Amino acid sequence: MNKKVGLLMGSKNDFETLKPCIKTLKKFGVEVEVHVLSAHRTPNQAAEFSENAIKNNFGAIICAAGKAAHLGGVIAAHTILPVIGIPVNASLDGLDALLSVAQMPPGIPVATVAIDGAQNAALLAIQMLAIENAELANKLIEFKAEMVDKILSADTELQAEVDKI
Amino acid sequence: MNKKVGLLMGSKNDFETLKPCIKTLKKFGVEVEVHVLSAHRTPNQAAEFSENAIKNNFGAIICAAGKAAHLGGVIAAHTILPVIGIPVNASLDGLDALLSVAQMPPGIPVATVAIDGAQNAALLAIQMLAIENAELANKLIEFKAEMVDKILSADTELQAEVDKI
Amino acid sequence: MNKKVGLLMGSKNDFETLKPCIKTLKKFGVEVEVHVLSAHRTPNQAAEFSENAIKNNFGAIICAAGKAAHLGGVIAAHTILPVIGIPVNASLDGLDALLSVAQMPPGIPVATVAIDGAQNAALLAIQMLAIENAELANKLIEFKAEMVDKILSADTELQAEVDKI
Amino acid sequence: MNKKVGLLMGSKNDFETLKPCIKTLKKFGVEVEVHVLSAHRTPNQAAEFSENAIKNNFGAIICAAGKAAHLGGVIAAHTILPVIGIPVNASLDGLDALLSVAQMPPGIPVATVAIDGAQNAALLAIQMLAIENAELANKLIEFKAEMVDKILSADTELQAEVDKI
Amino acid sequence: MNKKVGLLMGSKNDFETLKPCIKTLKKFGVEVEVHVLSAHRTPNQAAEFSENAIKNNFGAIICAAGKAAHLGGVIAAHTILPVIGIPVNASLDGLDALLSVAQMPPGIPVATVAIDGAQNAALLAIQMLAIENAELANKLIEFKAEMVDKILSADTELQAEVDKI
Amino acid sequence: MNKKVGLLMGSKNDFETLKPCIKTLKKFGVEVEVHVLSAHRTPNQAAEFSENAIKNNFGAIICAAGKAAHLGGVIAAHTILPVIGIPVNASLDGLDALLSVAQMPPGIPVATVAIDGAQNAALLAIQMLAIENAELANKLIEFKAEMVDKILSADTELQAEVDKI
Amino acid sequence: MNKKVGLLMGSKNDFETLKPCIKTLKKFGVEVEVHVLSAHRTPNQAAEFSENAIKNNFGAIICAAGKAAHLGGVIAAHTILPVIGIPVNASLDGLDALLSVAQMPPGIPVATVAIDGAQNAALLAIQMLAIENAELANKLIEFKAEMVDKILSADTELQAEVDKI
Amino acid sequence: MNKKVGLLMGSKNDFETLKPCIKTLKKFGVEVEVHVLSAHRTPNQAAEFSENAIKNNFGAIICAAGKAAHLGGVIAAHTILPVIGIPVNASLDGLDALLSVAQMPPGIPVATVAIDGAQNAALLAIQMLAIENAELANKLIEFKAEMVDKILSADTELQAEVDKI
Repeated sequence: MNKKVGLLMGSKNDFETLKPCIKTLKKFGVEVEVHVLSAHRTPNQAAEFSENAIKNNFGAIICAAGKAAHLGGVIAAHTILPVIGIPVNASLDGLDALLSVAQMPPGIPVATVAIDGAQNAALLAIQMLAIENAELANKLIEFKAEMVDKILSADTELQAEVDKI
Repeated sequence: MNKKVGLLMGSKNDFETLKPCIKTLKKFGVEVEVHVLSAHRTPNQAAEFSENAIKNNFGAIICAAGKAAHLGGVIAAHTILPVIGIPVNASLDGLDALLSVAQMPPGIPVATVAIDGAQNAALLAIQMLAIENAELANKLIEFKAEMVDKILSADTELQAEVDKI
Repeated sequence: MNKKVGLLMGSKNDFETLKPCIKTLKKFGVEVEVHVLSAHRTPNQAAEFSENAIKNNFGAIICAAGKAAHLGGVIAAHTILPVIGIPVNASLDGLDALLSVAQMPPGIPVATVAIDGAQNAALLAIQMLAIENAELANKLIEFKAEMVDKILSADTELQAEVDKI
Repeated sequence: MNKKVGLLMGSKNDFETLKPCIKTLKKFGVEVEVHVLSAHRTPNQAAEFSENAIKNNFGAIICAAGKAAHLGGVIAAHTILPVIGIPVNASLDGLDALLSVAQMPPGIPVATVAIDGAQNAALLAIQMLAIENAELANKLIEFKAEMVDKILSADTELQAEVDKI
Repeated sequence: MNKKVGLLMGSKNDFETLKPCIKTLKKFGVEVEVHVLSAHRTPNQAAEFSENAIKNNFGAIICAAGKAAHLGGVIAAHTILPVIGIPVNASLDGLDALLSVAQMPPGIPVATVAIDGAQNAALLAIQMLAIENAELANKLIEFKAEMVDKILSADTELQAEVDKI
Repeated sequence: MNKKVGLLMGSKNDFETLKPCIKTLKKFGVEVEVHVLSAHRTPNQAAEFSENAIKNNFGAIICAAGKAAHLGGVIAAHTILPVIGIPVNASLDGLDALLSVAQMPPGIPVATVAIDGAQNAALLAIQMLAIENAELANKLIEFKAEMVDKILSADTELQAEVDKI
Repeated sequence: MNKKVGLLMGSKNDFETLKPCIKTLKKFGVEVEVHVLSAHRTPNQAAEFSENAIKNNFGAIICAAGKAAHLGGVIAAHTILPVIGIPVNASLDGLDALLSVAQMPPGIPVATVAIDGAQNAALLAIQMLAIENAELANKLIEFKAEMVDKILSADTELQAEVDKI
Repeated sequence: MNKKVGLLMGSKNDFETLKPCIKTLKKFGVEVEVHVLSAHRTPNQAAEFSENAIKNNFGAIICAAGKAAHLGGVIAAHTILPVIGIPVNASLDGLDALLSVAQMPPGIPVATVAIDGAQNAALLAIQMLAIENAELANKLIEFKAEMVDKILSADTELQAEVDKI
């Protein structure tokens, strides 16, 4: 059975920022379960989710939070699954969240993506699952090829606009 | 019975930095219990300490950690006692720890002192306990008076050194 | 008689930002006295307020200021009450205020909360008063339980929105 | 056949910093292949390594570089394997490297760990491989248990030292 | 035959920011070729453009990108032409892009201009070409003289506005 | 009678850093009075010094402090004399002190010099006094000429060293 | 004859930000001469203004510029008058301008005020002129008293608004 | 006749940091003239050097300075030659110098290299001169090939060291 990806957000306010994450996972056919869970306000529920994640068939967990963004660290403390952290820009242009997510001490890594990097968190989770899943790997190869096409199309469109200057 | 203060550190490496905290609490006659406890490596023990802190007669808990310093946040999530956070300088001059401790989201405050501000964490805990404890309050008044004396003595000593320039 | 909490702001412009602080204190039944007082423009009035705070039955003082935010430091210099500092975002995303409030030298702590962290300042003050006040402590326990309920409700609402993606 | 992990460093100077990464991978029985490869000085060799990584049986690639640390980005551009980036502190306390690694644009993630976070990069790679490898998963569970033991032992040792203060 | 200048952008979204670059080059009569090319999404096309730049008669290449802005570094890795980097403000006020462009390791320079400094990138390219091109040099001298005139005119206009205060 | 300059330091630890300030004032024949005075630990003494500064014949006051460096602001609050602030590097490379000194709110300026800029603080005070003091003005003109000579001598010495490379 | 104050701005775009500076100088009856002058675009005119400032009866010169704000440094290089620098927020929230103005090397001070601190620059210039000008000194004392009144009035108004919460 | 490169440093203290710049220029057979010249202490000499640079057969000018590093901007103000700026780390890890050099306003570019990036400044100057100089271009191609060899040799050496772990 294919592994699921969990997407946890510290506040429902972050949902709009995180939609590209959900869309990308669905586009790749990866089942995603999404929850509002706070490291600070619902610590027991967060710990419980994390402790049960492997038996609930999750393969990776994405955690998004802003400011002193501890959600990824709390989840990573309770599981051996890879945890991906999205620092959300809620203050200081997101620098506080980036440092709170990336600067984890030895022993408990959180795989940090860019500030508000929702799509990349999804792609990273998919890459992890694709290590042993040829179908997902092929979809990633196609996705990379589509990106090339998009850039080349954008370049073609650009030429007309440059000529107008 | 007088309340105790808990001092938790994320790593035993921080002990040297934290000695002024312990010394200050002892000097004021406040009982202090010190533990190495990690938000990420011993999350269950950290939660348990916090959940039992009130019934174990703690009045405030000081948490010291570096980098993505989540210990204060994790402890604050499990208790209604005031939690004091000391950001420890372990990288980036301590800026990562300062932001990880201070930028807590609404609902769960951590009272942040300066980077490596061990003595001030102790004084802040004592100030909290002194709100309803006249003896401690008097000791704080004496401590403030001693600080004035020290500055004035330093000023007197300084004059001779200035004359030599 | 229950202790009051003082809320001082360096400029009336910060009033809007600080309303959650006042609302939270009132919700918990804690009397709050609010003043515009500037460390730089009304230094004598600020010192006087601070020196009289204990005899005026204050238990804690919250100070909110932006930029080179010295109000908390000035108030803390004149009292042994715990002083809580709210760094207000008035420039540099609030980083200048955060450092001006948090980086206090040894001897005079200011309990710093997040940039614009008005509600957390109130909660921290309440936690301090609750050390020896069982009624307030119970209200804090209820408040924590309400936060859990809100997160769980938000999670329930979220599911329908996720399904639409 | 078990997947290998690649560890690429932009400069041989970073070798000392990266030893905990190699040691951790070896301790878990994961084969690691280590190379000096520069995004800027040997771009063709870097691209070639990346393009052949899957057929050479790599499961994840760790890239360590300092300053404008582009190695992770360049490797990620040429493969669909998950790429882990270690920002190395070579200037500005490592902030330049952290931002150069973490702030990747949409489409090409790099899983960023802490500045000089060599051990965590190894653990993250192992976590990825362990998604579908029960033996590795069990070793991670043991590793987590050992960390708890170490913290608890450190706590026991600490008590004697605290008593001396 | 006069040398061309290449202007590469990592995303078509940056086109508006870059128009002053194109306008300035055209105003000086320098032929400019503009492309969307991504270091991460089209690494092979970027390398190919760079490797062929000298034989395609380019004299300098300007690269504009945001966030972990690697485009300049990737282009510089494949050519000996001078490469000019424009850090584009796409997050963190452009600080991430500035550090990703400026902090290049020894051996592969990228000539960095200000965040969003599109016009200056064009002027810098023109200055490079003007080292051995007297006609361009004269145009730069005229341009400098026009700037003086504009400042002096602005100063004259200002006087009336100052009088109104 | 010529005006004196006051030099106040928040801690005697800063004395070594401040010696160039004292030496420069003495070299120019400006009387300097030096004190250890803390904004936080001796607030009343600091206020008193400031309130009496004009009648004690001071013309300018230099204040040096580190971390949340409030001394300049506190002194400026109690006098209309120009106050010069030296941010002292005691943590965060001095960035906290720089922001605490420079970012003063409207109404109460502090003339900020560079981090640890002891000599420049002295020169700035002398420049202020020299506005109406031709003798001091002439000494400043000589000082500027000496600086030119020193640079030109250094340039001459440099040539031999360059030839050896 | 009373000394004038010069206000130089690197770009006419900064005029709106600088109006409080001009208004404050006029309110105190200090003659102000305002110019657009660029350190980089009109270096000779800037040098000339500075070299003639003393004989043109200036007592202090205020320089406002953004980004790599060199105007204050250039003016200070050519005169012994005190030079006041206003870092203007034109990028990076003004941090680049603040550092470019404040971090002057030994020998050439620039008295730095807050980012966009136009009014404080005026007050600082007035304080300098007031050292030997009793009339101006009295006006500064009145200004300080008015500030106290304004804060106290704001406090009175605040009480009604607080009651509504 | 081949163009010379000028290397100007704001202080002789920076000479050690700049030796790789001089060595690299000499290795490529490019004549280099080195001077101590300060934007602030010898502004007239700096302006004069810059104004005469073209007729003195310079092709590019490298300027190295720390803190509020204005030397590059001042030199660029007086010439149309390309000016390369090396931000020297003298405080704040060099961040102040980097921003002071890179954030030049429109009209006057300074080609910024990394903090303390002495060798890259030389290479950038050589790349500029090589645009119309086939001999220099060939040397750059050889230099790039040597860098590849060095990396590959380092990689070979590394293997033995990795085996020992």
